Amino acid sequence: MPRFFMKSTKRKAGLTPGTLVHIGERKVERVGIRIIDYDETFFEEKEVETVEECFPFRDKETMTWINIDGLHDVELIEKIGQHFGLHPLVLEDIVNTDQRPKMEDFGDYLFVVLKMLYYDKERSELESEQVSLIFGTNFLISFQERQGNVFEPLKDRIKKRKGRVRKAGVDYLAYALIDSIVDSYFVILEQFGERVEYVEQELATTPTQDTLQVIRTFKKEMIFLRKSIWPLREVVNSLERGEFPLIQSATGIYLRDVYDHTVQIIDAVESYQDMLSGMLEVYLSSMSNKMNEVMKLLTVFAAIFIPLTFVAGIYGTNFSFIPELEWKWSYFVFLFVLVVIGVSLLVYFRKKKWL
Amino acid sequence: MPRFFMKSTKRKAGLTPGTLVHIGERKVERVGIRIIDYDETFFEEKEVETVEECFPFRDKETMTWINIDGLHDVELIEKIGQHFGLHPLVLEDIVNTDQRPKMEDFGDYLFVVLKMLYYDKERSELESEQVSLIFGTNFLISFQERQGNVFEPLKDRIKKRKGRVRKAGVDYLAYALIDSIVDSYFVILEQFGERVEYVEQELATTPTQDTLQVIRTFKKEMIFLRKSIWPLREVVNSLERGEFPLIQSATGIYLRDVYDHTVQIIDAVESYQDMLSGMLEVYLSSMSNKMNEVMKLLTVFAAIFIPLTFVAGIYGTNFSFIPELEWKWSYFVFLFVLVVIGVSLLVYFRKKKWL
Amino acid sequence: MPRFFMKSTKRKAGLTPGTLVHIGERKVERVGIRIIDYDETFFEEKEVETVEECFPFRDKETMTWINIDGLHDVELIEKIGQHFGLHPLVLEDIVNTDQRPKMEDFGDYLFVVLKMLYYDKERSELESEQVSLIFGTNFLISFQERQGNVFEPLKDRIKKRKGRVRKAGVDYLAYALIDSIVDSYFVILEQFGERVEYVEQELATTPTQDTLQVIRTFKKEMIFLRKSIWPLREVVNSLERGEFPLIQSATGIYLRDVYDHTVQIIDAVESYQDMLSGMLEVYLSSMSNKMNEVMKLLTVFAAIFIPLTFVAGIYGTNFSFIPELEWKWSYFVFLFVLVVIGVSLLVYFRKKKWL
Amino acid sequence: MPRFFMKSTKRKAGLTPGTLVHIGERKVERVGIRIIDYDETFFEEKEVETVEECFPFRDKETMTWINIDGLHDVELIEKIGQHFGLHPLVLEDIVNTDQRPKMEDFGDYLFVVLKMLYYDKERSELESEQVSLIFGTNFLISFQERQGNVFEPLKDRIKKRKGRVRKAGVDYLAYALIDSIVDSYFVILEQFGERVEYVEQELATTPTQDTLQVIRTFKKEMIFLRKSIWPLREVVNSLERGEFPLIQSATGIYLRDVYDHTVQIIDAVESYQDMLSGMLEVYLSSMSNKMNEVMKLLTVFAAIFIPLTFVAGIYGTNFSFIPELEWKWSYFVFLFVLVVIGVSLLVYFRKKKWL
Amino acid sequence: MPRFFMKSTKRKAGLTPGTLVHIGERKVERVGIRIIDYDETFFEEKEVETVEECFPFRDKETMTWINIDGLHDVELIEKIGQHFGLHPLVLEDIVNTDQRPKMEDFGDYLFVVLKMLYYDKERSELESEQVSLIFGTNFLISFQERQGNVFEPLKDRIKKRKGRVRKAGVDYLAYALIDSIVDSYFVILEQFGERVEYVEQELATTPTQDTLQVIRTFKKEMIFLRKSIWPLREVVNSLERGEFPLIQSATGIYLRDVYDHTVQIIDAVESYQDMLSGMLEVYLSSMSNKMNEVMKLLTVFAAIFIPLTFVAGIYGTNFSFIPELEWKWSYFVFLFVLVVIGVSLLVYFRKKKWL
Repeated sequence: MPRFFMKSTKRKAGLTPGTLVHIGERKVERVGIRIIDYDETFFEEKEVETVEECFPFRDKETMTWINIDGLHDVELIEKIGQHFGLHPLVLEDIVNTDQRPKMEDFGDYLFVVLKMLYYDKERSELESEQVSLIFGTNFLISFQERQGNVFEPLKDRIKKRKGRVRKAGVDYLAYALIDSIVDSYFVILEQFGERVEYVEQELATTPTQDTLQVIRTFKKEMIFLRKSIWPLREVVNSLERGEFPLIQSATGIYLRDVYDHTVQIIDAVESYQDMLSGMLEVYLSSMSNKMNEVMKLLTVFAAIFIPLTFVAGIYGTNFSFIPELEWKWSYFVFLFVLVVIGVSLLVYFRKKKWL
Repeated sequence: MPRFFMKSTKRKAGLTPGTLVHIGERKVERVGIRIIDYDETFFEEKEVETVEECFPFRDKETMTWINIDGLHDVELIEKIGQHFGLHPLVLEDIVNTDQRPKMEDFGDYLFVVLKMLYYDKERSELESEQVSLIFGTNFLISFQERQGNVFEPLKDRIKKRKGRVRKAGVDYLAYALIDSIVDSYFVILEQFGERVEYVEQELATTPTQDTLQVIRTFKKEMIFLRKSIWPLREVVNSLERGEFPLIQSATGIYLRDVYDHTVQIIDAVESYQDMLSGMLEVYLSSMSNKMNEVMKLLTVFAAIFIPLTFVAGIYGTNFSFIPELEWKWSYFVFLFVLVVIGVSLLVYFRKKKWL
Repeated sequence: MPRFFMKSTKRKAGLTPGTLVHIGERKVERVGIRIIDYDETFFEEKEVETVEECFPFRDKETMTWINIDGLHDVELIEKIGQHFGLHPLVLEDIVNTDQRPKMEDFGDYLFVVLKMLYYDKERSELESEQVSLIFGTNFLISFQERQGNVFEPLKDRIKKRKGRVRKAGVDYLAYALIDSIVDSYFVILEQFGERVEYVEQELATTPTQDTLQVIRTFKKEMIFLRKSIWPLREVVNSLERGEFPLIQSATGIYLRDVYDHTVQIIDAVESYQDMLSGMLEVYLSSMSNKMNEVMKLLTVFAAIFIPLTFVAGIYGTNFSFIPELEWKWSYFVFLFVLVVIGVSLLVYFRKKKWL
Repeated sequence: MPRFFMKSTKRKAGLTPGTLVHIGERKVERVGIRIIDYDETFFEEKEVETVEECFPFRDKETMTWINIDGLHDVELIEKIGQHFGLHPLVLEDIVNTDQRPKMEDFGDYLFVVLKMLYYDKERSELESEQVSLIFGTNFLISFQERQGNVFEPLKDRIKKRKGRVRKAGVDYLAYALIDSIVDSYFVILEQFGERVEYVEQELATTPTQDTLQVIRTFKKEMIFLRKSIWPLREVVNSLERGEFPLIQSATGIYLRDVYDHTVQIIDAVESYQDMLSGMLEVYLSSMSNKMNEVMKLLTVFAAIFIPLTFVAGIYGTNFSFIPELEWKWSYFVFLFVLVVIGVSLLVYFRKKKWL
Repeated sequence: MPRFFMKSTKRKAGLTPGTLVHIGERKVERVGIRIIDYDETFFEEKEVETVEECFPFRDKETMTWINIDGLHDVELIEKIGQHFGLHPLVLEDIVNTDQRPKMEDFGDYLFVVLKMLYYDKERSELESEQVSLIFGTNFLISFQERQGNVFEPLKDRIKKRKGRVRKAGVDYLAYALIDSIVDSYFVILEQFGERVEYVEQELATTPTQDTLQVIRTFKKEMIFLRKSIWPLREVVNSLERGEFPLIQSATGIYLRDVYDHTVQIIDAVESYQDMLSGMLEVYLSSMSNKMNEVMKLLTVFAAIFIPLTFVAGIYGTNFSFIPELEWKWSYFVFLFVLVVIGVSLLVYFRKKKWL
């Protein structure tokens, strides 16, 4: 998972800054372009084939949300960049999926990079996908690594005029997208919570080496989550502070709400980290207890038989004159003495709480 | 307990922001609405059936405290919101009991979310309940998850004209409510202190695996308490700084007092955390000491008998010519030698402080 | 000791803020009131019976230091409060000995709460006593839990006109009182240093379970000291910054000196904490070394005799034809072989540095 | 590696500040001087013999990049300093290779010290090289410890007019140089990642003492990397904030990009540090598991044979009357009993999960 | 070493602030007073007998450096204080050698306290000496605990007109003195590095209990160094920020250089601390490895002989009918079986990597 931060940077060293190189896995076959054009009274949605079909919307007064799925076609992205007047470094950041969440203000547009997380159940791994947003006064362009369905409910809300989205500006749309992404973190935490609960029960009943392995994976996941959410929190915070003219103060209140969510997530992540540390301690101490129990019982075991064997050894010697040996019942006395010694030791160890 | 922070967020992902969904346990059968209307000379208290009965008080000049017990009836809360002009996100936060303590200024009213803690003796668990306060110039609305009695003494003080509450404004009432909640933390700490003391004695006399379990639970509780009190401290601090016109400077001094209390609570929590860490160390070292003691005594035990058994073994051999065996008293000499060896080893180990 | 922070808060929950309730131990029989009235040329000291005798001094131009020993008589304190125009919360803080050191500015007077520490040799415990100071332009009232002698040298200096105290204003008197208290921390550290040194020697020679206990107590004491000195440092710092008209700039330099002392104390406390952590490590490693030594020697012990016993066992078998047994000197050869095996093992273990 | 920070400072103590003493290894035979002179239309590159040949470029309007390879010739550097009006302390810092990355503004020129890192495969060690940059409005002088090829691609870009470098000013050239150096950190991380992966596999299969050694070396390298990148990040940050007239705002955006890279590197380093801590834990717990396994199996082993040997010991005694011995089949019963005891113990230990 | 911070404070508690009491060791017999009077063209150096001889220099226009060696003669220091108009608290700080490095601005003079460190090879201890500087526009007075030679090179530079010192003002002289002291820290680090290297080799070859002791001493020294250098860094930082009229901006650049040195020293100290932690870990793990090795080999040892002894025990029983005993070669078969069992166990343990 840590290599996630460093997917393939070597490929780039030495290139001119601003050169577009797609860094990351190619997750879709074909780049998908979807345009949603709307204002308070009007709504249109279409899937287009060529990037040129997006261009007229730049100068249209209605709000336009252009969604690009797939980042490997750098030419296409370059064309968008030229038409919408984006800085080369912005384009470079969009196609390089190693970015940390960040926000940059270019005056006539804001550029936001986010990380969407999902838990890949098949591979039992946290996966992350980079989502970039660019928005000006009347357009918003979102770039995703592949077609996702996290924005579907939002599209529906626009279509069905639910909530403020049709009335508010593009900044509210940007907020709604960020909110969707932050909400996906809650889903991750929910799933994580269930997995942790399962392992906690395992830990209480039959801890194994695997349990340890799983706890360690959990810890890594939480570190990963934390590293993703902290810069996201900063991004939302700087958007919310209301310093950008592109963001209306009415939207600021909503962004503050998202900000509160990021803080809640950090809180939850920290709680889980405490919990996992606790589980690790429980695991280690239960292992050590088990070992101690083994050692204690067995050592006591040995400690009882060693003197008994010694006594038997004495009467196994071949001295010519050992008076006890002659007496007829001495064997039985001998056995009795062994039993007495054994029982006394047992009682003693019991009393000392060693058994 | 950590799931407390994440009760059931999954239910919400994808919904329009501002949609009211009650998140949390339903703790009462019916929502209770109580109105306390007062000024310096006048006092009236009544339990009402419908929310509409509260509405006239918005425009009345007297101070009005409306207390709502139960959050599951979102329609009722929506009606209040519409009548008192509350922001949809505020209503959403009120019914979502996963909030962290926070404070927001909406110009003509302040919105404060708090967490009340109590120790559920039956379930041996710390429980938390969300309390939201909304107050403007002449009204205060408090939302509780269920009917509690923590505000009873305050109500009495209003009724009996004790203290400044009748003379001061709504901001003082808000202060008094916050103060009641902060005071409830002291009660928690008091109870906690007693429980810790009990376990400390147990630890000094007969520590068991359960002791460890209890210490770990205590640690979790303190983490939980700390996580609750820190944002509360921030809330009180920002109220106290005197930046809000709704809060008079005379009330500021009282809020500073509450602020001091939150700092005291944090201090106490940190002291308990230090103490619990110490107890954990004591537990672990007493366990390890016990184990060492067992191992030491028993190993010494073995070390004494092993050479003795060896000597006995020599005289158990069947060599045809072993001169010692022939002599009549050699058996007794043999026994004497064994005793000498055993005693010397004992003395040696004693001297080395291994026994 | 941690309960120190939470003496008996339960008693108060639910009361009107500003209600005077003495919280803490009652340390004196009768409240003592002492008045020291002075200016550059004049000096008078008297012990008075009733609080009313203090009142005329409020409006007298000379500087007046009123010292109250004992906090349990809340009526007396209430009277002072009314006469000198003190805020009810100030009075509440004075009689509640659970305060953290703090400073509050009420315009015409400053309110300072301090903690005096002393080491109770009989109970071998750090004790703390709350001292509150209230000072305006021409009067200073100090409240102590019981009659102490830490302010005696200062009183003498006033009487004998030593130093600046007679010439300077009431703010200098306040400084001198704070200085006395900070100086008492140095005494604590001095005593603590001696106790640590003693334990360090014990640790180097004969560490026992008790040593561990003492180190842990020391650690607790340092945490306690640290928790007391940090807020005190903040108090002095805010007094020194020169923002209060009641404090003249000439006194500011002296307060900066006190501030330096508090920093020095924190430095010393941190050094001791490092030292104690080191001592704990030394203790644990010396314990573990001892255990390892025992285990090693005894295991080697066993390892030598086990093969020897085995060899003896072989010749204890009753096979009808064992050629070695027949030969006359074989017993001696057998003994010789045993010695050779034993010595070789010993040499081998020596060489491996296991002995 | 830590001595890297303190190569040979003793040589200098007591000298006049500003005295030029080369501190560090002499890495090249002869100092190499290369001049690249260019503007939007013009390009010239030459290797010169004497430092005087650089001087005319100071007053030429074209942009000039003078690159010095080798720092041991302090006279040469002094000459440059005099001609370009550099402060003596700047020169001292250039030849002292113990500098931390830093940035200083001298009004008409900026002075930047950087550390270039590379991994020396032969010596399996991280090496660092100091690079100093001085740039004014129309010239940039770079000082390297030896001829490197990290700036080659940049030179090519200038030559082939790739990117903005020919159009932009000297500040962009400085940015490009810093960018090259920061990119070299990514290469280090890439290589490091591969090495870590290799050791991780080793750890999963056959951990040895050497594995531990390697993990520790890795940890040291990450500390070293972190110590290098943090001040570098500060340097880039202060350049980027746009407070220096020598840096144009257009370049500021590029520097922000470099700043993001430094943050990414720190993120990656922290991830690796977490990972290495995890690996260390895995190593230690796998060692301890191995040991426990050995101890457990062998102790169980002993625990089974000890009672068996005792039983055999009983029938090895020479009592004159042991009834069992007389009966013909008792030997076989005896053997059977031994087997029963042994198997029961085995089954018991199995059930207890000790085997 | 920690007591260094608290040499003998008890002696002072209760005294009037500003009372001069020499706190610290008396390190010289007689106080030495040396005057160096110079300007750009003029130089005079003399050793004087009485403090009064210094007084005329206060009003002389040339720059004067008065150096006092020895702090026990409080009268002498009081006379200087009176003549040069120093605050009583300054004098108190000069003679109290428990000060932390600090800086205070008194308008017409600056007061700087520094700590010089040296390593006492005979006592194998870090020693510290307090150096106080007071400087105005045309004079600088330095107070040392005893005659040192750390300022000799500087005196030579003044005499021989090396560097800027003769041309620059008193502030540059102050800088040069501070620089000398900071340089002495580098020497300490250099020596420390050598000692660490030596111990590191010892650790790699023959670690003993003493090695542990030495590492712990090293850790203490680094904590001590760190505690000395941090406040020094703050002092230099506040001098460098250019807020004091007594310090010219040209000197500011030099002070920034010293500041960089203090940061370098902190870096080096932190590197050493990391290194020492690593060494401690190596020590502990090598100890534990050794112990494990012993335990493992010996337990395996025992595990091989225990079953063999058991088999021999079987044939030592005196059952009347044991068929095997009768057969002539059974003894040899018996021996062969023992060898087979022993070798199989050996092979098994080898395969399990326990040997």
